[in-house]
Amino acid sequence: MTLKNAFYAQSGGVTAVINASACGVIETCRKNSDKIGKLYAGRNGILGALYEELIDTSLESDESIAALKHTPGGAFGSCRYKLKSFEENQAEYERLIEVFKAHNIGYFFYNGGGDSQDTAHKVSQLGEKMGYPITCIGVPKTVDNDLPVTDCCPGFGSVAKYIAISTQEASLDVASMAETSTKVFVLEVMGRHAGWIAAAAGLINQEAGDPPHAILFPEVAFEKEKFLAHVDLSVKEYGYCTIVVSEGAKYADGTFLADCGSIDAFGHKQLGGVAPVVAQMIKNELGYKYHWAVADYLQRSARHIASKVDVEQAYAVGQAAVEFALAGDNAVMPAIIRTSDAPYTWKIGKAQLSEVANVEQKLPSDFISENGMGITEKAKTYLAPLIQGEDFPPFKNGLPMYAKLSNQLASKKLDTFEPK
Amino acid sequence: MTLKNAFYAQSGGVTAVINASACGVIETCRKNSDKIGKLYAGRNGILGALYEELIDTSLESDESIAALKHTPGGAFGSCRYKLKSFEENQAEYERLIEVFKAHNIGYFFYNGGGDSQDTAHKVSQLGEKMGYPITCIGVPKTVDNDLPVTDCCPGFGSVAKYIAISTQEASLDVASMAETSTKVFVLEVMGRHAGWIAAAAGLINQEAGDPPHAILFPEVAFEKEKFLAHVDLSVKEYGYCTIVVSEGAKYADGTFLADCGSIDAFGHKQLGGVAPVVAQMIKNELGYKYHWAVADYLQRSARHIASKVDVEQAYAVGQAAVEFALAGDNAVMPAIIRTSDAPYTWKIGKAQLSEVANVEQKLPSDFISENGMGITEKAKTYLAPLIQGEDFPPFKNGLPMYAKLSNQLASKKLDTFEPK
Repeated sequence: MTLKNAFYAQSGGVTAVINASACGVIETCRKNSDKIGKLYAGRNGILGALYEELIDTSLESDESIAALKHTPGGAFGSCRYKLKSFEENQAEYERLIEVFKAHNIGYFFYNGGGDSQDTAHKVSQLGEKMGYPITCIGVPKTVDNDLPVTDCCPGFGSVAKYIAISTQEASLDVASMAETSTKVFVLEVMGRHAGWIAAAAGLINQEAGDPPHAILFPEVAFEKEKFLAHVDLSVKEYGYCTIVVSEGAKYADGTFLADCGSIDAFGHKQLGGVAPVVAQMIKNELGYKYHWAVADYLQRSARHIASKVDVEQAYAVGQAAVEFALAGDNAVMPAIIRTSDAPYTWKIGKAQLSEVANVEQKLPSDFISENGMGITEKAKTYLAPLIQGEDFPPFKNGLPMYAKLSNQLASKKLDTFEPK
Repeated sequence: MTLKNAFYAQSGGVTAVINASACGVIETCRKNSDKIGKLYAGRNGILGALYEELIDTSLESDESIAALKHTPGGAFGSCRYKLKSFEENQAEYERLIEVFKAHNIGYFFYNGGGDSQDTAHKVSQLGEKMGYPITCIGVPKTVDNDLPVTDCCPGFGSVAKYIAISTQEASLDVASMAETSTKVFVLEVMGRHAGWIAAAAGLINQEAGDPPHAILFPEVAFEKEKFLAHVDLSVKEYGYCTIVVSEGAKYADGTFLADCGSIDAFGHKQLGGVAPVVAQMIKNELGYKYHWAVADYLQRSARHIASKVDVEQAYAVGQAAVEFALAGDNAVMPAIIRTSDAPYTWKIGKAQLSEVANVEQKLPSDFISENGMGITEKAKTYLAPLIQGEDFPPFKNGLPMYAKLSNQLASKKLDTFEPK
């Protein structure tokens, strides 16, 4: 009997460790070559399946695959593409089945966040709804840390570490300059709906006066007067003020701070940047000299300062996904289960895709301090283990040696797909 | 005979390695305790001398001083404050002499960039002009890499490494996303007048198609049509485009790109950010989805990914400053002399402060590629050695263990200073 082949794809915004999950999937498939045939990776996520662009991972050396563990970004390309429901776009599912059949694919591993687990959940129903049984396992990934069931999401720990360290370093800088120059520093971090990443900056706040002096969460309605008074007090008491702001920070009426109504010289609405808005507000109202930074992609791709715990968990969920598939599971996702805070221990559990898809886990209210601009001890207990340990990539000539795969496509067997 | 005491101060924008220079100065003074008395550090740079706020470094343990070598920011506080000429503000110089006399200070070490070396040069003339002989040695520091005589400036190598790595990492991210989402990524880096930092991003461009696809230097007049055509071509050929832009990028008429005439909802002129301006221009003209980042203080404080060469040079110039002083030099600055490109070797030479003060070294035109948006092999030969090697700080609980000094002030002996 010919072994069934497998399909793996990366989906949504990539992270510093999504390739570590890919490494876990691929190495575990290779170890089980008596049970699983070839592993194809979708070129640009699920699009690779629709367009029959299947990267033949068997053509990559063991060394290249091992190097994925320390390489950021999505080595096979990712995509922002959500399958519609069976009813809305049956042709897409028919196409998937056509491609899976043509390449004898019986396993589907989908590496992504909430939207992607929804896609994985739909694919897991191909047997029941369309008569093409396929083993479908989700692999969790998102810097937003907003998936339910799992204690944390691979990708988050490394961003958390990067933001905590960057806040610490930039604060040492501004503290040095504050007497005669910059007194306020604003760092914008990712998080449109949930303040997990911003909260991580709070880990460096260990005694009174430590930065960050204010964190602005999407979960807490922004109160301008209260915030400005707090900034003023920080500058007066500590000489400076470091602020970490989530891109999704908003007023009580739901208006984003970033949507400040600015227009450029051409009359176009300015897109972006809550950090400059907050900085300008402070300058206008309090007169303090400021600097601001927007970390953007730098934060989620900073593999050079990844959390070791995060890398290990990312690998583990990839490995577990294959093991679950081989054990006969379907429509599940490996989840990280915390078994102890101190010392931190964890194990891999199992979540149903139906429980995970499209659910967004926000920062619990008891993680946010009373004034709404800091984090509680409970939050620190949760966050601290996730940034533990370093896992530096190898360096050559001063630069990290990141993997470059050859990404050769398997020969096409079908006609070109025309999306609706 | 009582030994003369010494004064050390940090000046101007701080760096990831200015404290490594402080460490070099302090440790070398400690080794020569038979020749130099106490070492005082100015609280907030030269202001510490004017206000008689002298940090007694002898109260810090050897361990704390050693930890400065891996701690970013300015441990004693820096300042942006330029002494006027003797003629314009003689009272300031009289005050310096008063403080130096009161604390028996015979050595002055000033750690800064071009403006600061001007201050150091003026102080070196106190003997000749005001009858208070003092040994004055400059210690080079600036992320801008714009000091003359010295081959490079401590602080630059670490920013260069950070920017090269961040550009590489973010490019892997955008390359993964480009098929269905972000196609253009813009990273803004420091450099108002000189493009050294932006140039460093070019180190990751090793073969055709490698990022960054365009670098915008302050030295090259921005040509909108040419730039947009280049971006469009990159997206079409490689699927995405990474752009690194100096904050000081400008049009031929001298207008900064950042000064785009935007006003906010309150009618205030928007300050800042050339990255969003470039990104918005691309969106408006070419329609590509973009992301942008502004590294700001993150880049110059990123001690976690400092260049080992840079740390060693920063320490060496601090050490050499004290050795020069003890050898009887005055009005000089240790300079880094490159003795070979490959293998990279260097030694410490000597520059006259009169040659260094107020001179700005721009990126040579033969470092910039023909199209004005990349760097040449010659630039790579110069830049590559400066980012060599890693010198990670020690970590605890996932965060770097940065030094916290007690910074205790020596007892004041004089009346309060009232600046003019």
